[in-house]
Amino acid sequence: MQRALNVTRQANFADWYQAVVRDADMAENSPVRGCMIIKPWGWGVWELIQYGLDTRIKATGHENCYFPLFVPLSFFAKEADHVEGFAKEMAVVTHHRLTTIDGKLQVDPSAELEEPLIVRPTSETIIGDAFNRWVKSYRDLPLLVNQWANVVRWEMRTRLFLRTAEFLWQEGHTAHVDREDAMAETLQSLEMYREFAETVLAMPVIAGEKTEDERFPGADNTFSIEAMMQDGKALQAGTSHYLGEHFAKAQDIKYQSETGELRYAHTTSFGASTRLIGGVIMTHGDDDGLRLPPAIAPRQIVIVPMLRDKPEDADVLAFAQGLATELGETLALKAPIRVLLDKKPLKSADKRWNWVRRGAPIIVEIGPRDAANGVVTFMRRDALRDGDKVASHNLPRADFIAAAPGLLAEIQANLYAEAKARLEANIRTDLKSFDDLAAHFGPAAEDDDAAATFKGWVRASWSKPTGEALDAVVARLKTLKLTIRNAPMDQPATFGPCIFSGEPGVQEILIARAY
Amino acid sequence: MQRALNVTRQANFADWYQAVVRDADMAENSPVRGCMIIKPWGWGVWELIQYGLDTRIKATGHENCYFPLFVPLSFFAKEADHVEGFAKEMAVVTHHRLTTIDGKLQVDPSAELEEPLIVRPTSETIIGDAFNRWVKSYRDLPLLVNQWANVVRWEMRTRLFLRTAEFLWQEGHTAHVDREDAMAETLQSLEMYREFAETVLAMPVIAGEKTEDERFPGADNTFSIEAMMQDGKALQAGTSHYLGEHFAKAQDIKYQSETGELRYAHTTSFGASTRLIGGVIMTHGDDDGLRLPPAIAPRQIVIVPMLRDKPEDADVLAFAQGLATELGETLALKAPIRVLLDKKPLKSADKRWNWVRRGAPIIVEIGPRDAANGVVTFMRRDALRDGDKVASHNLPRADFIAAAPGLLAEIQANLYAEAKARLEANIRTDLKSFDDLAAHFGPAAEDDDAAATFKGWVRASWSKPTGEALDAVVARLKTLKLTIRNAPMDQPATFGPCIFSGEPGVQEILIARAY
Repeated sequence: MQRALNVTRQANFADWYQAVVRDADMAENSPVRGCMIIKPWGWGVWELIQYGLDTRIKATGHENCYFPLFVPLSFFAKEADHVEGFAKEMAVVTHHRLTTIDGKLQVDPSAELEEPLIVRPTSETIIGDAFNRWVKSYRDLPLLVNQWANVVRWEMRTRLFLRTAEFLWQEGHTAHVDREDAMAETLQSLEMYREFAETVLAMPVIAGEKTEDERFPGADNTFSIEAMMQDGKALQAGTSHYLGEHFAKAQDIKYQSETGELRYAHTTSFGASTRLIGGVIMTHGDDDGLRLPPAIAPRQIVIVPMLRDKPEDADVLAFAQGLATELGETLALKAPIRVLLDKKPLKSADKRWNWVRRGAPIIVEIGPRDAANGVVTFMRRDALRDGDKVASHNLPRADFIAAAPGLLAEIQANLYAEAKARLEANIRTDLKSFDDLAAHFGPAAEDDDAAATFKGWVRASWSKPTGEALDAVVARLKTLKLTIRNAPMDQPATFGPCIFSGEPGVQEILIARAY
Repeated sequence: MQRALNVTRQANFADWYQAVVRDADMAENSPVRGCMIIKPWGWGVWELIQYGLDTRIKATGHENCYFPLFVPLSFFAKEADHVEGFAKEMAVVTHHRLTTIDGKLQVDPSAELEEPLIVRPTSETIIGDAFNRWVKSYRDLPLLVNQWANVVRWEMRTRLFLRTAEFLWQEGHTAHVDREDAMAETLQSLEMYREFAETVLAMPVIAGEKTEDERFPGADNTFSIEAMMQDGKALQAGTSHYLGEHFAKAQDIKYQSETGELRYAHTTSFGASTRLIGGVIMTHGDDDGLRLPPAIAPRQIVIVPMLRDKPEDADVLAFAQGLATELGETLALKAPIRVLLDKKPLKSADKRWNWVRRGAPIIVEIGPRDAANGVVTFMRRDALRDGDKVASHNLPRADFIAAAPGLLAEIQANLYAEAKARLEANIRTDLKSFDDLAAHFGPAAEDDDAAATFKGWVRASWSKPTGEALDAVVARLKTLKLTIRNAPMDQPATFGPCIFSGEPGVQEILIARAY
């Protein structure tokens, strides 16, 4: 069967992912190692993700600020665990001028900074420094800020959207009077991510707490949402951290309590990034390209006029333009429908397939007969094919306009339902031992990006070892390229024996290969 | 007379500016040299500026993208004029890791980059590299992209919003088939900035072309909008550049024309930044703090309930809440009114003055008597005082709600009219020689930030010298700390003699001290 991409998910999932990113015009590699160029269609998705998250972040009382791109080296030295976690992968600014020496442009050796500056890999330390000035009294708490920013982490192996040296994100940072208030904030942020991922990205996730070895450097507790990609691997799609008093102590963030004592604030942070776009692609894409949930589709309905350099073209264009205008005045998913009349000078068949690969939820094709009869011919990207053939639908113009909001809502719901069914059907709960895990997952592929067989996740009880005992478990899992994703928030009342030790279990965890 | 700030514009304009930025909670200095922290009220203004510009940029067919933060050093070496203009002030990343040596965290000497990376001071070269891949045929042109990004220019002397090492901006980048099309784009962007500044920021400007010595490094023509601050100095508030074929040649951006020849594209760029916020402050602020044009006020109407820990408080709050809700459902300036009910646990007089300093356009105070009588008592920030006293107005509730959209539109118009009158009244056109300039402007103050007397601008004819003759004029002006701002777009039919040489004039220019 002919597909719009030249590689299938089945044949090579990693190659398929690259093909979608390229053919859907989402992003491309840049000449700067590990840094991506986000193209208009990818950026349009990111704008809608930003809008959805920003609205939610503001609705819960957070205010947007902007903090410096650079963090003085000494700030990192203040929080030992934090620097330990990040020191290996940061871009360091050491000079502030170039000069021409022997006719060659180079770094000016006389312009060395007194103190090197780190391009922020995350902003706990630089924002903590501001909190130190802003927090004086219990009346200043909770302090709830957020910023939209670029961050840089030097990565050895990068992949567009999923792992890039520079990426874009929001990072929320908050300070509270005590653990209780800070933990409530941490869980509220986690729930915000879950609701956003499921409602807006149509990406079902499991929210839970990370194990101690997977915590954010400097955190007391780290929570995540984990989504299942179509190769069965897990993608961490958002994290929320309770930082205890660690950063408050490192940055001396103290407040005077109602009773007059000086106390350390309890801080939290939470972040979600352009990685979400990678998650959307690997959740919803198919062998014809991307399928975008209407809530984040920059264009929800694309109208392709079938022009033939003939007199009827004018009628086709007039009909298409009228349709576009009326759709643009119609509400769907609580906003005016984002509609595009694609008038580019390309063959209409090429335009159709471009929009199929880009994942526009509804693609309308208007020919002379449609215009004459007042009929709208359209494809649904969530159900593009009937067998091998492209499934085309017809509706009288007025009926199509009336149906459009419902169609878009249905596509949004269908994409979610499809992904939800895949997630639920692919979490094994019957494995009892490490040997069972090894048998189920099989040996780790040499190149785990390539055609790994779909294995899904395993949910199992464990005895929640700590310290060296946990390290031993992690090392053992690593031999199978497995990781513990999180301990889901919804836990049963009783537990089976620990899958690693056979000791009494105290918690259920998710085990999976992951991005 | 008691004012809400502790320094007046008259006494010391530079100190006054700092006081407004601080007391209006707009921004503060960070511990990172030259980098600012933008606080929620300042960020709220920036979000509205972004929205207004972004809408206009998209309406003219530009698509948003995102390009890497880093530019390889070799890219700068490609365009000689460009690097000459920027090489002196860039942040250079030379290493990608920290390590602990002798117990001290420091740059890992073994992690030096093969090629240093520059933190983008502007993105012509890195975007040009993408254009090289994206432009193949005349069908790909015009190529119209824009990005919202942070950029870094190492500045020796910084001032919040006006000149900071890191700042935020949009940068548009376009490629065209020929000079004509590129120049039309350049002028369209200039006109967009003019219209935006005047309509949204209520900041009158003069659009014109920069002289050759003030061109963007690598540009054939640079255009700017210039605004007059309340100390009489000029602020360049947006620039648009026709780059000719310089960057196309440096980055090999070629296209196949309709007739099959390979030609260089003609490129343009245009940018406006967080500096606009400084312009708004220095255009509209008064000795009580900031006055925000309603179009960019994060909160257009702030309601302060006068609570006294008495039973009537409930009625006051209920009345204020109802008013806030109804105002929030009312349209003003084509959007729902941005209203805030300020319930913070502060004295209501303190809250009033906080909002005066922050420049909320309308401040409503609701006391028990207002609530009982259904009356709204309010102040207009554009006309806060009647003599020394604060001018307070009353309207029945329904009348106030009905009047609110008109009031906000009137405040927007008043602020513009006030600034426009100042601009028009303070451009001298009667000076005939350099001696006249020297007599008018007087010697440059030792510290030109301090209480310089208001001098305004001078508009005069000149003979448009080039090369060394221009350098001589510029040097002479510099002795008076004067610069040529631009040659306004609207030029007369005939010209007086050149103010510098007495030769026949060919163009009128604006001369001023500037930020």
